[in-house]
Amino acid sequence: MVELMFVGRSSSLRVIYSGVRGYSSANEKVVGFIGLGNMGAHQATNLIKKGHKVVVYDISQDNVNKLREKGADVAASPSDIAKRADVIVTMLPASAHVKSVYCGDNGIFKSIKPGTLLLDSSTIDPQTARDVADIAAKHNATMLDCPVSGGTGGAEAGTLTFMVGGKDADFARAKPYLEAMGKNIVHCGDIGTGQAAKVCNNLVLGISMVGVSEAMNLGVKLGIDPKKLAGIFNTSSARCWSSEVYNPCPGVLENSPASRGYTGGFGSALMNKDLGLAVDSAKSIGEPLPLGTTAHQFYTMMVQKGLGQKDFSAAYEFLQKTKN
Amino acid sequence: MVELMFVGRSSSLRVIYSGVRGYSSANEKVVGFIGLGNMGAHQATNLIKKGHKVVVYDISQDNVNKLREKGADVAASPSDIAKRADVIVTMLPASAHVKSVYCGDNGIFKSIKPGTLLLDSSTIDPQTARDVADIAAKHNATMLDCPVSGGTGGAEAGTLTFMVGGKDADFARAKPYLEAMGKNIVHCGDIGTGQAAKVCNNLVLGISMVGVSEAMNLGVKLGIDPKKLAGIFNTSSARCWSSEVYNPCPGVLENSPASRGYTGGFGSALMNKDLGLAVDSAKSIGEPLPLGTTAHQFYTMMVQKGLGQKDFSAAYEFLQKTKN
Amino acid sequence: MVELMFVGRSSSLRVIYSGVRGYSSANEKVVGFIGLGNMGAHQATNLIKKGHKVVVYDISQDNVNKLREKGADVAASPSDIAKRADVIVTMLPASAHVKSVYCGDNGIFKSIKPGTLLLDSSTIDPQTARDVADIAAKHNATMLDCPVSGGTGGAEAGTLTFMVGGKDADFARAKPYLEAMGKNIVHCGDIGTGQAAKVCNNLVLGISMVGVSEAMNLGVKLGIDPKKLAGIFNTSSARCWSSEVYNPCPGVLENSPASRGYTGGFGSALMNKDLGLAVDSAKSIGEPLPLGTTAHQFYTMMVQKGLGQKDFSAAYEFLQKTKN
Amino acid sequence: MVELMFVGRSSSLRVIYSGVRGYSSANEKVVGFIGLGNMGAHQATNLIKKGHKVVVYDISQDNVNKLREKGADVAASPSDIAKRADVIVTMLPASAHVKSVYCGDNGIFKSIKPGTLLLDSSTIDPQTARDVADIAAKHNATMLDCPVSGGTGGAEAGTLTFMVGGKDADFARAKPYLEAMGKNIVHCGDIGTGQAAKVCNNLVLGISMVGVSEAMNLGVKLGIDPKKLAGIFNTSSARCWSSEVYNPCPGVLENSPASRGYTGGFGSALMNKDLGLAVDSAKSIGEPLPLGTTAHQFYTMMVQKGLGQKDFSAAYEFLQKTKN
Repeated sequence: MVELMFVGRSSSLRVIYSGVRGYSSANEKVVGFIGLGNMGAHQATNLIKKGHKVVVYDISQDNVNKLREKGADVAASPSDIAKRADVIVTMLPASAHVKSVYCGDNGIFKSIKPGTLLLDSSTIDPQTARDVADIAAKHNATMLDCPVSGGTGGAEAGTLTFMVGGKDADFARAKPYLEAMGKNIVHCGDIGTGQAAKVCNNLVLGISMVGVSEAMNLGVKLGIDPKKLAGIFNTSSARCWSSEVYNPCPGVLENSPASRGYTGGFGSALMNKDLGLAVDSAKSIGEPLPLGTTAHQFYTMMVQKGLGQKDFSAAYEFLQKTKN
Repeated sequence: MVELMFVGRSSSLRVIYSGVRGYSSANEKVVGFIGLGNMGAHQATNLIKKGHKVVVYDISQDNVNKLREKGADVAASPSDIAKRADVIVTMLPASAHVKSVYCGDNGIFKSIKPGTLLLDSSTIDPQTARDVADIAAKHNATMLDCPVSGGTGGAEAGTLTFMVGGKDADFARAKPYLEAMGKNIVHCGDIGTGQAAKVCNNLVLGISMVGVSEAMNLGVKLGIDPKKLAGIFNTSSARCWSSEVYNPCPGVLENSPASRGYTGGFGSALMNKDLGLAVDSAKSIGEPLPLGTTAHQFYTMMVQKGLGQKDFSAAYEFLQKTKN
Repeated sequence: MVELMFVGRSSSLRVIYSGVRGYSSANEKVVGFIGLGNMGAHQATNLIKKGHKVVVYDISQDNVNKLREKGADVAASPSDIAKRADVIVTMLPASAHVKSVYCGDNGIFKSIKPGTLLLDSSTIDPQTARDVADIAAKHNATMLDCPVSGGTGGAEAGTLTFMVGGKDADFARAKPYLEAMGKNIVHCGDIGTGQAAKVCNNLVLGISMVGVSEAMNLGVKLGIDPKKLAGIFNTSSARCWSSEVYNPCPGVLENSPASRGYTGGFGSALMNKDLGLAVDSAKSIGEPLPLGTTAHQFYTMMVQKGLGQKDFSAAYEFLQKTKN
Repeated sequence: MVELMFVGRSSSLRVIYSGVRGYSSANEKVVGFIGLGNMGAHQATNLIKKGHKVVVYDISQDNVNKLREKGADVAASPSDIAKRADVIVTMLPASAHVKSVYCGDNGIFKSIKPGTLLLDSSTIDPQTARDVADIAAKHNATMLDCPVSGGTGGAEAGTLTFMVGGKDADFARAKPYLEAMGKNIVHCGDIGTGQAAKVCNNLVLGISMVGVSEAMNLGVKLGIDPKKLAGIFNTSSARCWSSEVYNPCPGVLENSPASRGYTGGFGSALMNKDLGLAVDSAKSIGEPLPLGTTAHQFYTMMVQKGLGQKDFSAAYEFLQKTKN
């Protein structure tokens, strides 16, 4: 039974932070963090750097050890985190993991303290976010969905965008913690709308990436120089992030994944997962998604054909003729 | 009035031409213009304004009369234009009209003079562009494909973008005439690449508009404020012209077609036609177009259901539930 | 061959059940039936007609009363059914209802007796079928998925086809009860495969109906007499149930839903639901479904546009041009 | 010039023909045949076997020699055929070849005799069929579109189905020649409807094959035995030629292409071509084809990925996960 009584952050620390953030008071909160993968490890590290007392849990002992070295306390289970923390951040791969970490036998809800603030920055479907938040409410705790964009680079630099769903007052409570991990904290609406915004953003992204890939491929095959074609797109009505910042045709942008063999970046399997969330969400409320489902099938085929670990701009490569 | 300083044509050639035409002085080129619709009328007017001697033809006598009042000479047929002009600009609805105006019984090729410069600014498929250019070459004439973007507003203001396919030297010859009608003159490559660039640009545009419509519709139905959702898109990886400049959700942008009942703008039937060109082009060379064909079918359904004359951003409206 | 004469429940029988449970030598089992809708009411009636002692539950008192008049006992809740029945048949609209009736506060599992045989003839996703069967196993009960085809006509006539998932021995136990309601009892494999077979059958059906509709529409618009075109299909490689038995073009078949304004038959909203199950199942195991998802979107659009209550062959009508 | 050597037809038959046709003085007609590929060689052979005087042309000298050995006369060009024949059958790969053989420099129309009956059994788009028939009419000749189904087996056995477009009287003239090559001669309507019927038939076929492939793949992955699943389809509403006669899952049918590595049969590249004709036809009249275009894209991808020469039921294989 760990009884964490943080009375006072060292004044020197407080001075430094209050200069930066200005939100630290005499009450020191313990922040639990569950899910120390590529994203979560950076987020937890940033919380520590900003002066938060952090206690972590992950199924991988390696991941845990790395955070311990950076100053984190270590918990034995999500339930143990719940006993010790006032605020808990979770960063998990998919809905099933979120359900398990919150509702499982050794889950958060087993030992949660009334008043705990739960910040789930996993990318999951909005309905699961609402369901888990409902259970949290029954425990007199508050859960917000806070999925991110910005990738591992943004996680490391602390420049993530958080899309947050929850009530105004709860958003105000959550904001200081999110600001320790990100730069752009957007309040999207009620619980679930953070996930919805993330899902909708990536829906457009997945569609436009395949669209740009089709058009770049067609244009090049019709004899246009790819850089010239991208230039036309970027100064005209085809302009989009997928063409301008992340063009899928090798050689158009020097630093794009396309120009380094589609390594790094955001994997096709992850885009397939996110488009799957959009398909689920639309189906659950009976809304049509003709291009979204086609793009989802496209990424499913890419994964089937062994391109799941390549960057999602490998859509361009998948359109190419196979040499026999 | 005429400010043409045409250097580098042999005087003997000039003599021959003036002998054939009869009414041209030594340094004056006659510009023929065929197709005086919403776009063409403005383009021909701008040529006149810039001091060119212009002779026009259109199947509509009304359209012809309007240009006559602005100082154009009038020809009796495309063939008659060919007899009188050194440069001919055509602006026609579709491939069939281009074939007919160039190759028909009273078409341009019936009377074309050697050395004539042919500038087709219609939007047609690249293959037809190449085919007609081949026939032109047999008549010792030169044809370039010069489709435009910028709409009727750009046509009137003389700020159109021209995407030009043709050889370097021919592009140099064409440029002064195109600059009289547009602002941004892009040389895309060999003959046909102007059309290809236009087709590819509108392919991305048509896809991203349906994609943004699906995502805006989904997000709003999931409870996100549309302006907030568009704001997230526009500062993130969903950013694109269709969201930022032309958002299809009513009320997001004050001056978008969506905010005035999808009137004005670029009609769904025209987008359907342009996506059809992309489908044709891709099929002719065996390249896949999974999202492009789905978007094309979407616009075909919109036209079927009576939305052909509405702006193409009415894709958003077409996704809505019909009240019964 | 089994001639069941259920006259009440004898206490000796109850003793046998509690002691041995297994398969009563006295041949007297109580059959519970939950879900007395268009299908279930006929199924329960047929069980009574074949001499089974039947106890029923439905949320609609009207539905319950109709069965009471036919000789059914009435239970107060699914839990009450579970207390009284040895075999329970459920026929419910969707996965959510199945979960609730089995696992809810007053659900079957609250009072289930060891050895109970559970036959779910709802059409739901295979994963939910497996999940509920797993819970049943923890209660020492056995659940089989037994979705049907044959429609309300087959339900009334007792000629349904049952697609059954479960172990060989359990299938043998279930068969006599299913034969009281249907004619063709197919053992598909382990638990979940009955649902999978149903889902896959309707996946082909939904796709071929839209495909036949597209082709009939195209052919008629190209000038072919619809009966002649259907005749060609039906004697050639386009032959399929959707063309031969259920042709979607009005007038081709005298007794098809198409020839009576798409009334009766199998509603578009139900086909939309079944294709949704296929989409879910495929997504859950990462298998592609390019035509299945497109057909699903097509039916989603039909429902959106107010055609959900029309027969699913109204796909043909949905392809028609709207008169303006 | 005319070399009528009509041997071996019963005189009574000859009387009937002369009664119907009335063109030939000697009652002997020369049949020209152009296009001696896998299909055409068998068709021409059958015409010879039935006693027709046949004169042939093909770009391959090998193909020509084989027919010479079987008793055919040889012509130097399509134009030469036109000089010598009263009836001309063409069997060519695609629209471009038809245009060239009929309208080219040494084409049929260069030397065609008034009254010539032209029977094009190529599979091309209905519009090209109508266009060429219009030109034929200007030469006082009559053209009918007569595409076939039945494959090379049917061509060899003389059991092809002919789908014929043309006027009643012209159909009556054509029928005897078609009956020499096929068994089932279907009059579909006016010129172009033969092609339209073929295109629509193969549209359903292409869609149902991908649909059955998706459903067989899904069911097998969900644990159902493929033969059992096919059995369910074939006795239920999923029944179709693609499942029953030509099941794409290896092992389900002993003699299907699927059970011999997708060799033989009807190549994916040919199905891709035929679906392309459907896409063209639908687009030309503004009719939607949502599943047809998706199926077309699917086959285009198969061709891209090197499966073009495999039987079109390799759609099943293309859905499989690639082993890495």
